[in-house]
Amino acid sequence: MPAISNKGLKMPESPIRKLVPFAEDAKKKGIKVYHLNIGQPDIRTPQVALDAIKNNDIAVLEYSRSEGSEVYREKIAAYYDSKNIKVSATDIIVTTGGSEALFFTMGTIADAGDEIIIPEPFYANYNGFATASGVNVVPVVSKIDDNFALPPIEEFEKLISPKTKAILICNPGNPTGYLYSREEILKLAEIAKKHNLFLIADEVYREFAYDGAEHYSIMQVEGLEEHAIMIDSVSKRYSMCGARIGCIVSRNKEVIASALKFAQARLSPPTFAQIASEAALDTPQSYFDEVITEYVARRNTLVSELEKIENVKVARPKGAFYCIAELPVDDADDFAQWLLEKFHLNNETIMVAPAAGFYSTKGIGKNQVRIAYVLKEEDLIKSVAVLKAALEAYKS
Amino acid sequence: MPAISNKGLKMPESPIRKLVPFAEDAKKKGIKVYHLNIGQPDIRTPQVALDAIKNNDIAVLEYSRSEGSEVYREKIAAYYDSKNIKVSATDIIVTTGGSEALFFTMGTIADAGDEIIIPEPFYANYNGFATASGVNVVPVVSKIDDNFALPPIEEFEKLISPKTKAILICNPGNPTGYLYSREEILKLAEIAKKHNLFLIADEVYREFAYDGAEHYSIMQVEGLEEHAIMIDSVSKRYSMCGARIGCIVSRNKEVIASALKFAQARLSPPTFAQIASEAALDTPQSYFDEVITEYVARRNTLVSELEKIENVKVARPKGAFYCIAELPVDDADDFAQWLLEKFHLNNETIMVAPAAGFYSTKGIGKNQVRIAYVLKEEDLIKSVAVLKAALEAYKS
Repeated sequence: MPAISNKGLKMPESPIRKLVPFAEDAKKKGIKVYHLNIGQPDIRTPQVALDAIKNNDIAVLEYSRSEGSEVYREKIAAYYDSKNIKVSATDIIVTTGGSEALFFTMGTIADAGDEIIIPEPFYANYNGFATASGVNVVPVVSKIDDNFALPPIEEFEKLISPKTKAILICNPGNPTGYLYSREEILKLAEIAKKHNLFLIADEVYREFAYDGAEHYSIMQVEGLEEHAIMIDSVSKRYSMCGARIGCIVSRNKEVIASALKFAQARLSPPTFAQIASEAALDTPQSYFDEVITEYVARRNTLVSELEKIENVKVARPKGAFYCIAELPVDDADDFAQWLLEKFHLNNETIMVAPAAGFYSTKGIGKNQVRIAYVLKEEDLIKSVAVLKAALEAYKS
Repeated sequence: MPAISNKGLKMPESPIRKLVPFAEDAKKKGIKVYHLNIGQPDIRTPQVALDAIKNNDIAVLEYSRSEGSEVYREKIAAYYDSKNIKVSATDIIVTTGGSEALFFTMGTIADAGDEIIIPEPFYANYNGFATASGVNVVPVVSKIDDNFALPPIEEFEKLISPKTKAILICNPGNPTGYLYSREEILKLAEIAKKHNLFLIADEVYREFAYDGAEHYSIMQVEGLEEHAIMIDSVSKRYSMCGARIGCIVSRNKEVIASALKFAQARLSPPTFAQIASEAALDTPQSYFDEVITEYVARRNTLVSELEKIENVKVARPKGAFYCIAELPVDDADDFAQWLLEKFHLNNETIMVAPAAGFYSTKGIGKNQVRIAYVLKEEDLIKSVAVLKAALEAYKS
């Protein structure tokens, strides 16, 4: 039997999805499972996007341009303009989700054995894209006690080697919910320039900034034009995770030219999803206002409920819709599985994402979980009640 | 300015798409361009697929499962059963086009520096996926004088080294139109087993087999279960190139488990397109009968018209919808660009794909072009008239 590759063996399992079979078994036993494990919002997709699909008059479902349709890219550029990010359509390559944008970016900037520095905990799939690209992730620990703020810039500098090609951040952060300040972004920009590195920012949660805080994009930093690469996606913004449309944005012409070659190899992003995504750009501001109000209420409820549980520590998210909670357990992996396999409270249980998978350093985050507050407040309250009862039962 | 990767520099430009700017300039000058360069059929997408999209009742456009929806995979397995390919849903991973299936497969079976043997000319984007994966393509030349039949099996064996992980074929072939016989497939299966290699077959043109020939799949070879990996796609079968839905099929559990990890990293294939693709499986046989009749007529017209031109040699395709023609020019790349930049016949010209980009060996195929017969017969006749006049003008 032929052997699969080392790369195939090393590809990480998704910490978000690996417990899915246990959740399915629980459901088969008649237990209701609250899904706090995945960033799949229950928020309605904007009607304007759904209507565009229903009203399409396609007769031949053709390839689009590899870089995405001209009209769509023009409209994306106009959207960025409204966010004070000045780019043109030629700075944009439409991708199949933010996932593909990350993959093309890694291929474009790093060869096998090269390094990318990422503050951890980070979006777990960065590990997958890095492994697929042969790139090594070099983590910088950010701490729950600091709310997962940017680690001291010296910690980054210590790790920079001739193999370092980029620093990658997610802002606001998945899984931390942390929103980097303008000052923190400027510090990162400075070391990127000083050491001639790319600064990549995954800004797919841009709209989800709370408490009056304003999102500051790496694309707004003057003088960072050749260094900045932004990753974006429609998935969360418009609750259109299944569309699989994202983009790479950079003013660095070489980056865009290379990413385009990756894009050409896979021909084009999905056509129907581009139609929906283009239409979604006409979503009225009232939609976002309602959604943000809803998420803020959910965050407030979740955090205050979690804080009521003894020995549970929780970071207060300023954006996105995740939070990291530290639990009084030794191994959150085992605990999360036990929640699905062995526990229920009035026939209800919860599915959470063990946080160890969001760290690259072995052994860190073992007592942490990521909770996505993508459910209604009443379900979050019930979920935390399940967690509280479970922690008591698990101890004994 | 930070430097992009060697990989990014080495990523090949698409030979199918690199002349697009010249075609656009020609159109701006009011010249009609017949697109023979790309396998984008003008055939209508099955109504049942389009209706499924128009009638969808999605309110939240969610992720699907990473491996594709259960129901869709069951239906794909039933489709294969009707083609005498016995596989189950668990042998299938739904991908974003055949492109992603190829990319996941390369990552699953080969590490950086490993080799894959491919008969050339081959689908040009195999080069892109190989470069992106750090894999080296080792070509075996097939010849226009043999109609691009399978090269002698000794030619393959000569090239097998400890780094060889797989043989990859496209059947029926893009760009050759060649349909491998059962005997040829069995020969390949034998050396794959003998040398413990994977045999990968891109069978996206399965339905497009002409002249009463029957397509024989690598999945039908007994004893090849652990070696065979099939790549598939809805793009050509249902004229749904813009859907971006394909799949990997293998009975090798390790291959599927690894490919699933690649699939999890990118979350899920596009949801709308899966709905369309699932519905497309109910396309009536009459659709395919009509389409095949149309393609056979087109092929016959194209080949007989080409054969009328002096010093043009053409391979007779037995499947797919491409053919390779050898032209009395030194450099088909220059000629193809000249066709768009400098030539027109009554304000019409043609866009063809220079064939050199379909070869891995440097210097071969420089006087060949790939012609996709994806246009109506009358347009093909006009296109060949343009070619004839152009060759005369180009000589002088």
